[in-house]
Amino acid sequence: MTRPLKDQEAQALLQAGTVARLGCVSDGEAYVVPINYVFDAGFVFSHSLPGKKVDALRTHPRACLQIDQIESDTEWRSVIAYGTYEEIHSPVERGAILNKLLSRFPRLTPVEAVAVHDAAAPETVVFRLRVDAITGVAED
Amino acid sequence: MTRPLKDQEAQALLQAGTVARLGCVSDGEAYVVPINYVFDAGFVFSHSLPGKKVDALRTHPRACLQIDQIESDTEWRSVIAYGTYEEIHSPVERGAILNKLLSRFPRLTPVEAVAVHDAAAPETVVFRLRVDAITGVAED
Repeated sequence: MTRPLKDQEAQALLQAGTVARLGCVSDGEAYVVPINYVFDAGFVFSHSLPGKKVDALRTHPRACLQIDQIESDTEWRSVIAYGTYEEIHSPVERGAILNKLLSRFPRLTPVEAVAVHDAAAPETVVFRLRVDAITGVAED
Repeated sequence: MTRPLKDQEAQALLQAGTVARLGCVSDGEAYVVPINYVFDAGFVFSHSLPGKKVDALRTHPRACLQIDQIESDTEWRSVIAYGTYEEIHSPVERGAILNKLLSRFPRLTPVEAVAVHDAAAPETVVFRLRVDAITGVAED
């Protein structure tokens, strides 16, 4: 049967994960995409090329991040973190966040690797989610 | 670099998948949860115990289903299917759908296994999404 995760278990899963599904609201409908992320000190850090996800989050900044570890149909845990989208514009902060992402994901795409070396380049959108709630459930 | 998936590739991924992330809108916010599903003839079939997901879908029946195959940070494909939630009440249809799910996921939880044998039992919510759009992207 399913059980709620303890706060500590939910935080640990959020910390350990590298792929999350980001849900946001686009034109009144849910929109879900996979993202790479780093969770650190209450923030989820990520980056994106401009597009539907960024447009949606700029318009409707509340987001839902879902992360899971699925061993089988009957052995899994899943965490949801709710947060608010904040876009990072300062070149210093952009560089620091892109470096944090690069150290976790060494194989960023070319456009993003360039952005690490020139964080003032506007192409890559750097953002964080200010997380205000984390919940989790497990079946094990 | 990412590329759009051909219709056929996107359909194939949706058909092959067993775990999807279902995004819906709950109290104006995105809500994302993993579900087991079967895609057949234009419909996504699934089931659930009553709760936040079912409450959300009853109120706001548009849903976004995201399915992916992730080999690595730079080798992945992801599909999104948009659809409308339809709850199944007829015992005959409920039984047929639960059997379809049971044959794909033999280890349903006890409450659901009971429901297969007594599809009139109201506890398990049986539903489908009437899919009206499928899109996909890949990096490979």
